[in-house]
Amino acid sequence: MEKESSWDILYQIDKELVLLEQTAALLEWDEETQMPPDGIDGRSEQISLLKGYIHDLKSSAEMGAALSAIEEGKLAVTDAQRALIRIYRKEYDDAVKVPKSLILQLSDAESKGQNAWVFARKNNNFKEFEPYLEKIIELKRVYADTVGYIDHPYNALLNHYEPGMTVARIDALFTPLKHEVVSLMDKIRACETIDDSFLYKKYPKEKQDRFGREILHDMGFDFQRAQMCEAVHPFTTTVGADDVRITTRYDEPSVSSPLFSTIHEGGHGLYELGASNSKTRGTALGEGVSMAIHESQSRLWENIIGRSDAFWTHYFPIFKRLFPEQLEGISKESFVRGVNKVESSFIRVNADEVTYNLHIIMRYELEKQLIEGSLAVKDLPEAWNTLSEEYLGIIPDGPQNGVLQDIHWSAGLIGYFPTYALGNLYGAQIYHELVKQVPETVTQFSEGNLNDASLWLNREVYLKGSIYTPEDLLKMITGQELDSSYFIEYLWSKYKAIYKW
Amino acid sequence: MEKESSWDILYQIDKELVLLEQTAALLEWDEETQMPPDGIDGRSEQISLLKGYIHDLKSSAEMGAALSAIEEGKLAVTDAQRALIRIYRKEYDDAVKVPKSLILQLSDAESKGQNAWVFARKNNNFKEFEPYLEKIIELKRVYADTVGYIDHPYNALLNHYEPGMTVARIDALFTPLKHEVVSLMDKIRACETIDDSFLYKKYPKEKQDRFGREILHDMGFDFQRAQMCEAVHPFTTTVGADDVRITTRYDEPSVSSPLFSTIHEGGHGLYELGASNSKTRGTALGEGVSMAIHESQSRLWENIIGRSDAFWTHYFPIFKRLFPEQLEGISKESFVRGVNKVESSFIRVNADEVTYNLHIIMRYELEKQLIEGSLAVKDLPEAWNTLSEEYLGIIPDGPQNGVLQDIHWSAGLIGYFPTYALGNLYGAQIYHELVKQVPETVTQFSEGNLNDASLWLNREVYLKGSIYTPEDLLKMITGQELDSSYFIEYLWSKYKAIYKW
Repeated sequence: MEKESSWDILYQIDKELVLLEQTAALLEWDEETQMPPDGIDGRSEQISLLKGYIHDLKSSAEMGAALSAIEEGKLAVTDAQRALIRIYRKEYDDAVKVPKSLILQLSDAESKGQNAWVFARKNNNFKEFEPYLEKIIELKRVYADTVGYIDHPYNALLNHYEPGMTVARIDALFTPLKHEVVSLMDKIRACETIDDSFLYKKYPKEKQDRFGREILHDMGFDFQRAQMCEAVHPFTTTVGADDVRITTRYDEPSVSSPLFSTIHEGGHGLYELGASNSKTRGTALGEGVSMAIHESQSRLWENIIGRSDAFWTHYFPIFKRLFPEQLEGISKESFVRGVNKVESSFIRVNADEVTYNLHIIMRYELEKQLIEGSLAVKDLPEAWNTLSEEYLGIIPDGPQNGVLQDIHWSAGLIGYFPTYALGNLYGAQIYHELVKQVPETVTQFSEGNLNDASLWLNREVYLKGSIYTPEDLLKMITGQELDSSYFIEYLWSKYKAIYKW
Repeated sequence: MEKESSWDILYQIDKELVLLEQTAALLEWDEETQMPPDGIDGRSEQISLLKGYIHDLKSSAEMGAALSAIEEGKLAVTDAQRALIRIYRKEYDDAVKVPKSLILQLSDAESKGQNAWVFARKNNNFKEFEPYLEKIIELKRVYADTVGYIDHPYNALLNHYEPGMTVARIDALFTPLKHEVVSLMDKIRACETIDDSFLYKKYPKEKQDRFGREILHDMGFDFQRAQMCEAVHPFTTTVGADDVRITTRYDEPSVSSPLFSTIHEGGHGLYELGASNSKTRGTALGEGVSMAIHESQSRLWENIIGRSDAFWTHYFPIFKRLFPEQLEGISKESFVRGVNKVESSFIRVNADEVTYNLHIIMRYELEKQLIEGSLAVKDLPEAWNTLSEEYLGIIPDGPQNGVLQDIHWSAGLIGYFPTYALGNLYGAQIYHELVKQVPETVTQFSEGNLNDASLWLNREVYLKGSIYTPEDLLKMITGQELDSSYFIEYLWSKYKAIYKW
């Protein structure tokens, strides 16, 4: 009796929380895609109201009692039940530990921070942003102390995006990655530069859209349960158990930006679509398990598959038929080299697959130091430039192209950056396993068959939803722990072919 | 102290209710415009959750106590305060009277009813829908008994859409309207038929959209606070204090459908935009006061202004420059006659401005009889055909084009239809006052100046939001009670010119 009733309560709260999270996600999605400009104040109030409901439910006495009864009675017997307890125990503990006053202070600091960042960036002046970032860092340190952590306060923030990940693990993964990428960059710099000017011609939007949708369709993206529209920033969100939204942006200087961001968001979308299935739908388990695993799937589709020679063996003739003038005289080989051109640049979001990792490692090292207190916010621009020169070999011409380029810190997203590079590592390791198990994968790509790879990923990754932790999931798929050597090996082998040494 | 605290509580609940209603409206708007097909089940759950929160708040003990304290202490001193008490007293009383079981039964019957209606309509078979409609009528009668009514159970349903309106008032308004319209139709039938075939040519959508937006702009529709997109059915909704959405549909056989529905929804939109202002924003007063007043504004813009000769004196040359081939040889006069062609037809939503009223009166009479129990659901198709012949002079070729054509009854919207025709009456009476006060109005239209009329309507109608009841509002504007003679007079005078007798 007790058993049933605690589960009933937990499932009921879980269902309500998921519906509220989806509704909040729709409010945010609409803000980015449909809302008229002056709608912003009202929208913020609507989102705050729902976030308040969510916080109250997560920290409710009913939730606490149900969790304790289940844990004490050892009533979680299936993997899915254990996962639900794992997730809500953490959410409940955090929610009851953090006083509402701190949540309000943080949300106020982040809202003011974002506003200040917009102007500081526009004015290319870090000083305007400095006091706001100081406040955010101070509150994030209080937050870490409040929820508690082992070894390093940064772990408390990291855990929010990547459950179970630690500074120690990341350092062990990023150190070899950094050295290898720096040395790969030396090698690439010595090679002849690649001509990618044909990507910067005028490509009519409507045809780009048609081509993007064809690839999404081939990837298994289900337009009955998902849709794509335009937004200022490409992103993916889930607003219902059978309702996933991805966005793309066509007004870019290069045709490759919208193309690969469609594939990238398509990867996120496939993960969300698969994660919500008969076993998980409408529960907290029906979504991707972490930011890094999510990013592994988007990057696997975008870079490992989407920028591969085999992929374009099939798609380049189709693409060229759509854009014969723009691609006149361009062979498949020059196209593939063009979309894989490597070059140090200031802006992370435009970075290639190789230097991107250095952008992330820089930000990770800086934010870790800010949180541990070994770097003061006022010294951040100088520290940024020093690392930029060391890793990328270039110094930004101003904070606009340097320390002020990303919205993350102003929005309080601290501990988020590392998941982008961790995604590369997870992605390469999972892809390595796919090719091991299905050796004909690359041949299939060259024949335009993306479906078998999609089905394998669906079975091994997507359908698992949030049932297993990122680490356990990787072990189930590959039998191994996360290891940066797969990605490093992938980079060396791919770029040797691209740069022909 | 007591005074402040009761008001504080009421304002707080009011604010929360408005945010929840807006969020529910966004979920519904998105369902009609953006949602992928399979999203429907999850969306229904999200909407139900919010509607449950809304019901709980409206019937909460805090709400009841605050209302009583304010009423007993006579603490409502401003018009806005009295209006808030008027609105929430009614909402609270209804919400506490109606048991949740009845709400659930109704929502279940409506959901099943809509589903059955879709198939019955497709199969042109009323019998398939009959038991579902019987259930809905039965529950609506129970609902009327539960909330209580004076004189006629239909008044309880009517009040939901048109506060203060009664069967006795409607009968007194509709009886002369019906006779006059029937006799106007006799006159029109004796005239030469109008050629409107040029409206059915191919008009490219993109140019229609551009032209529609130009008119909206001229009407004073503020794209900073509102937007328009495409949907299967044209409608207007408010999803934030500064966020109004209108929709239109371009794939219609006639170019006049999307054109006039854009102006129609634009009228609704202007009302909602004006209703949310510095005095009312974020409260229950910041929206249109009733369905009939709302419809008066959409129809005033669509028909009285938008289909007038003066309006096209300015816009026809612009329209013709956009579509020179489609309008070759067509004069402004033939165009205006074309868009005002009157003809009895089966389908209400395609009806002209004259016969439209007969469609509404028919539905009103039938649903009134269903609710009072003088007509059985099984006899409805026959009663429909009898009235159709009597009023419109035609008998539908089947239920698809007759009794099954509208979604309203299947969705439990009973008591809603009369507001469409009441809107015509209100609109003509308000417009009559506008022309009396600003005699140059018609000349302004012919010069492309819609702004002065828009400002007058804003001041007299829109800015009032829901502060005054429909009756009081009309009295404030015109000094008179609602009177069908203004609309009747408008019809005779306009169609005499159109049909040249």
